[in-house]
Amino acid sequence: MAEEKKEAQQQSKPQTDRKPNNNRRNNNRKPNNNQNRQGADKNSQNKNQNAKPSNNNRNKSRNRHKRGPAPVDDTLKSFVIKNQEVHKQRLNPHYKLNLDSKAKVRITPLGGLGEIGGNIAVFETDNEAILIDVGMSFPDEEMHGVDILVPDFSYIREIKDKIVGIIITHAHEDHIGAVPYLFREMQFPIYGTPLPLAMIGNKFDEHHLKEFRKYFNPVEKRKVYKIGNDFEIEWMHMTHSILDSSSLAITTEAGTIIHTGDFKIDHTPVDGYTADLHRLAHYGDKGVLCLLSDSTNSHNPAPTPSELSVAPALDRVFSKAEGRIILSTFSSNIHRVYQAIQYGIKYGRKVCVIGRSMERNIEVALQYDYIKFPKNIFVDADEVARMNDKDVLIVTTGSQGEANSALFRMSIGEHRHIKIKPSDLIILSSRAIPGNEGSISQMLNHLQKGGAKVAMDRDLHVSGHASMEEQKLMLRLVNPKFFLPVHGEYNHVMRHKETAMMCGVPERNILLMTDGEQIEVAPKYMRKVKTVKTGKTYIDNQNNHEIEDDIVLDRQKLATDGVVMMVAQVSEQTGKMMDKPKVTTFGIVPDKRDKAFAKEMEEIIENFLINMKPGLIGSPKTLEGDLRQVVRKHIYRKMKKYPLIVPHILIH
Amino acid sequence: MAEEKKEAQQQSKPQTDRKPNNNRRNNNRKPNNNQNRQGADKNSQNKNQNAKPSNNNRNKSRNRHKRGPAPVDDTLKSFVIKNQEVHKQRLNPHYKLNLDSKAKVRITPLGGLGEIGGNIAVFETDNEAILIDVGMSFPDEEMHGVDILVPDFSYIREIKDKIVGIIITHAHEDHIGAVPYLFREMQFPIYGTPLPLAMIGNKFDEHHLKEFRKYFNPVEKRKVYKIGNDFEIEWMHMTHSILDSSSLAITTEAGTIIHTGDFKIDHTPVDGYTADLHRLAHYGDKGVLCLLSDSTNSHNPAPTPSELSVAPALDRVFSKAEGRIILSTFSSNIHRVYQAIQYGIKYGRKVCVIGRSMERNIEVALQYDYIKFPKNIFVDADEVARMNDKDVLIVTTGSQGEANSALFRMSIGEHRHIKIKPSDLIILSSRAIPGNEGSISQMLNHLQKGGAKVAMDRDLHVSGHASMEEQKLMLRLVNPKFFLPVHGEYNHVMRHKETAMMCGVPERNILLMTDGEQIEVAPKYMRKVKTVKTGKTYIDNQNNHEIEDDIVLDRQKLATDGVVMMVAQVSEQTGKMMDKPKVTTFGIVPDKRDKAFAKEMEEIIENFLINMKPGLIGSPKTLEGDLRQVVRKHIYRKMKKYPLIVPHILIH
Repeated sequence: MAEEKKEAQQQSKPQTDRKPNNNRRNNNRKPNNNQNRQGADKNSQNKNQNAKPSNNNRNKSRNRHKRGPAPVDDTLKSFVIKNQEVHKQRLNPHYKLNLDSKAKVRITPLGGLGEIGGNIAVFETDNEAILIDVGMSFPDEEMHGVDILVPDFSYIREIKDKIVGIIITHAHEDHIGAVPYLFREMQFPIYGTPLPLAMIGNKFDEHHLKEFRKYFNPVEKRKVYKIGNDFEIEWMHMTHSILDSSSLAITTEAGTIIHTGDFKIDHTPVDGYTADLHRLAHYGDKGVLCLLSDSTNSHNPAPTPSELSVAPALDRVFSKAEGRIILSTFSSNIHRVYQAIQYGIKYGRKVCVIGRSMERNIEVALQYDYIKFPKNIFVDADEVARMNDKDVLIVTTGSQGEANSALFRMSIGEHRHIKIKPSDLIILSSRAIPGNEGSISQMLNHLQKGGAKVAMDRDLHVSGHASMEEQKLMLRLVNPKFFLPVHGEYNHVMRHKETAMMCGVPERNILLMTDGEQIEVAPKYMRKVKTVKTGKTYIDNQNNHEIEDDIVLDRQKLATDGVVMMVAQVSEQTGKMMDKPKVTTFGIVPDKRDKAFAKEMEEIIENFLINMKPGLIGSPKTLEGDLRQVVRKHIYRKMKKYPLIVPHILIH
Repeated sequence: MAEEKKEAQQQSKPQTDRKPNNNRRNNNRKPNNNQNRQGADKNSQNKNQNAKPSNNNRNKSRNRHKRGPAPVDDTLKSFVIKNQEVHKQRLNPHYKLNLDSKAKVRITPLGGLGEIGGNIAVFETDNEAILIDVGMSFPDEEMHGVDILVPDFSYIREIKDKIVGIIITHAHEDHIGAVPYLFREMQFPIYGTPLPLAMIGNKFDEHHLKEFRKYFNPVEKRKVYKIGNDFEIEWMHMTHSILDSSSLAITTEAGTIIHTGDFKIDHTPVDGYTADLHRLAHYGDKGVLCLLSDSTNSHNPAPTPSELSVAPALDRVFSKAEGRIILSTFSSNIHRVYQAIQYGIKYGRKVCVIGRSMERNIEVALQYDYIKFPKNIFVDADEVARMNDKDVLIVTTGSQGEANSALFRMSIGEHRHIKIKPSDLIILSSRAIPGNEGSISQMLNHLQKGGAKVAMDRDLHVSGHASMEEQKLMLRLVNPKFFLPVHGEYNHVMRHKETAMMCGVPERNILLMTDGEQIEVAPKYMRKVKTVKTGKTYIDNQNNHEIEDDIVLDRQKLATDGVVMMVAQVSEQTGKMMDKPKVTTFGIVPDKRDKAFAKEMEEIIENFLINMKPGLIGSPKTLEGDLRQVVRKHIYRKMKKYPLIVPHILIH
């Protein structure tokens, strides 16, 4: 602002350059048009002088200044050119890449692109390969009975012998959740910082794969690890919505590739461990071949606020609570839970943790000293009823209104220990994930009917992913030759591409990948070389076993259109039904119409048998096929549905 | 968001850990209270099963998972500790400073603190000193006839022999404006990038100090210059509201001090020359002794938008203009003017530049290739009248409604070439500087009475200074041991201090300076050591000469309270007035009351003479003094004013 104020005040002086001045030099360069104005200015000056004769004295000195353009100073101009060269070199450090090298890296995302979740990527040299993250994803509503989705490992099977290690960026399920499913089939050394490995260790235990902990290689940040012969990898600390996250610097003969992992730039993280901008800048200055960067919040122009920024909001709502506080958030956001507990302590409350994932995550964070709390601040759920309401903070899952979560059960009065009271304050320290608005709203209805107050102000939650401005900072620090936006659906990576172009990456140096596309990156070029098989394996979480694709298709059919089963006994001699057929339906007609529907079916079958060609009776399969057609037509005509139709015709 | 979605979906699964499980291990660590819940969960599980018998199959497999905390993995835990050490070292690189060194640096701001403008600071070792910037500032409304303020050079005079150079950060007046006034008295080598030197060169020419250009030492960015024996300085490119700005890395035996200069972090600057974050990070990682950083926008939580962000706004308003476009902005913001001209060209307009500083700045930017335009896009002001209105873009000064600016004169119909028309679109690409709202509003009234449309939307201007988030980035990159917020009034540096504390600088390592305070910084400590003389010298721009302080005080008095002059002739014999006294007043009564007032004075003087002690007639000075008292009392009683009173009593 200083220069603006200065200038504004300068303007308020009389314009001394409006005076005629014979010393003024000629100069044809536009926009200098002083010469043309002299006469005019003289006139207006005179006018002024007539109006305000008292200004006479001030005006006298105006002729002293010489006007007109100064000559160009050649030395200065030579330094303009030198500095342009300096800028060129610092903004294009890629000239340091070895353009004569034949070395190249192939990058294949097997998940995480064109979708949210299931992040897994293969980085390959000619002889070796590494996997970056092995995450799972979640089924959509149509995948009945499927709990999680695991990437298709076909390509990994194919290049199995090349793989020298698995590299983990952070401990979120969409980055580590599929590790046990992979390890059941094949094992590799697995490299990561302690929290992701501890979480994978827990998974191994659950999957009876405890012995695979031997594949763990914990790493220190800021150290370069040689993995295989072809890869050198450094984990650089990153801020995100889970502790102990990393970006990766992956150096091969072709150059250094930076993979951001999931990140935001939080200058005031709860644990004080800021993003390691210095190492990013270090690589950026050396010349980075390629950047892969988190696209989740590509559309968000406002910077993602610091995790610490929820503190004042928590304090505000905690300070007003007159009864129990029941706070719900994403359990993996340890720092959110940590902050909530801190404010609980500040206001003299004991903490009751309810919800399996919440308990598990707090436990690991405490075990590995990521957070510290005295043991005596925690109480059990069954103690809560005996405590003074003002002494209780319940931290729990269920911020999305999930039907089986602790908070939802509390809301409908089905939680054994916690019954909602009018004096309770429910805090949702979270955002409604698109699609969950309905269930959250339903839960809110229940909670508020129960008389509880609900706080869910916007400032009670922040995202864990970089917005546009932070993506720009990343692009400017890393300053890559090639850019691959990752971690997002098509619209996210597309937007991220536009941001990268604003930050100086030429469009031809950016590719938008989808799962299975193999990109080859070399100092001189980046291009798509082939497509490998990708897909999802469906997992039933109850037994951690795979479900075949066709089962899921059947389930979708059943869920959408229902099923009709019918058993008819037909006399071989007469070709007539020997008894009423048994008709069982699910998902087609309401129970009270079952009989009427069975009657309809009976008539159809009778009609069908009457009109049946005589020879057909000896071929029950064909008979059943034909009957299915007839029934299907009938049901479609009446109900516009194509249920599964399962006819059994028993010939006696 | 991925992890959140995942977790939300995980929650919606039945809570499998609610099952009784005999394999569960005991663990006393809170918040694990699984043991206590088993009975309860069993009950609720049974209840569920009764309600939905069809779920039987799914529930069967739940017992397979073992629950309870995993044991702590000692290897992983050892890596947690190792990583904590890595974080400690990277976040506290100050252990690299030589704590045994006796070396120290003294920093003395002679201007720019406790005020906006007039930036100048002295950095001293035992034997040598440098000046950082030599800026001027602007008078407030009370300093009549003063055009600019120049820092008091007393302290510089005192240490003159130690000074080995002047270091310039950028070309704004509040950083270079006082150079000619200093050089008139004493000269030193002056170091800077080309634009600031070119601008100082122009000043030298104006001040008839052309020969002092020989002191110029243009520098290249990213190079370290040895200045004297004790200083090594690197200019690091910075984004700001003027081209070619720099931060400084000043290395002495005591350590490296980073001086940001004025800055914002613009990831998409108009010329593509982004802030050199890499060099800041480089020094930050090596361990910085002290940071001095721009506090102007300390109160602003929203990031300062990129200069490029005004482009869509300019495009929007330009596209709608149906007549001439008259755009006014701060003339030093070359990139703003550049963008305006670009959109002028886009919409087929020729450009007419009006206003001395605007012409001068565009000229220098063109001369030194900072911007490029074909010559034929410019037209003279006297050509405008002959042109089609849709072909005209006028770029001019006056965005603050300054009474003598070109735009203001246009608004009141006093500009020779440009008469406002109803079809004109006036664009104020600027913000109202506090205090100027009135004059801008007045100008807007005139313009709109003239029928012109005015566009002054918020998005037509952005600031040149870092907001809180960018200050945080600077603090995190530089990661200084000590911190001195500069460039601002007390409330600005105070707020900047709070931001620094959030970013890990301990409160004891931060000092808030005011002009003249000398701070000593050494690897082990920072403290205030003494105060040197500071102040302002008043300059009348008409002759570039100094004005004594008492003159300014007189002018203030005159302006506030007016003046009464009276001449009375008194007979020495009779002690009576020999004629009516002559009474002349300015700024006390309206002209029409002049006579009445003179009459009043006459009566007072007569009264005074009648009551005068006889001996007084021989002592005219005392007489005058006493008369002044009487008149003052009278005027104060009647008007509550204390004008200057100048009695002349002539004794005959």
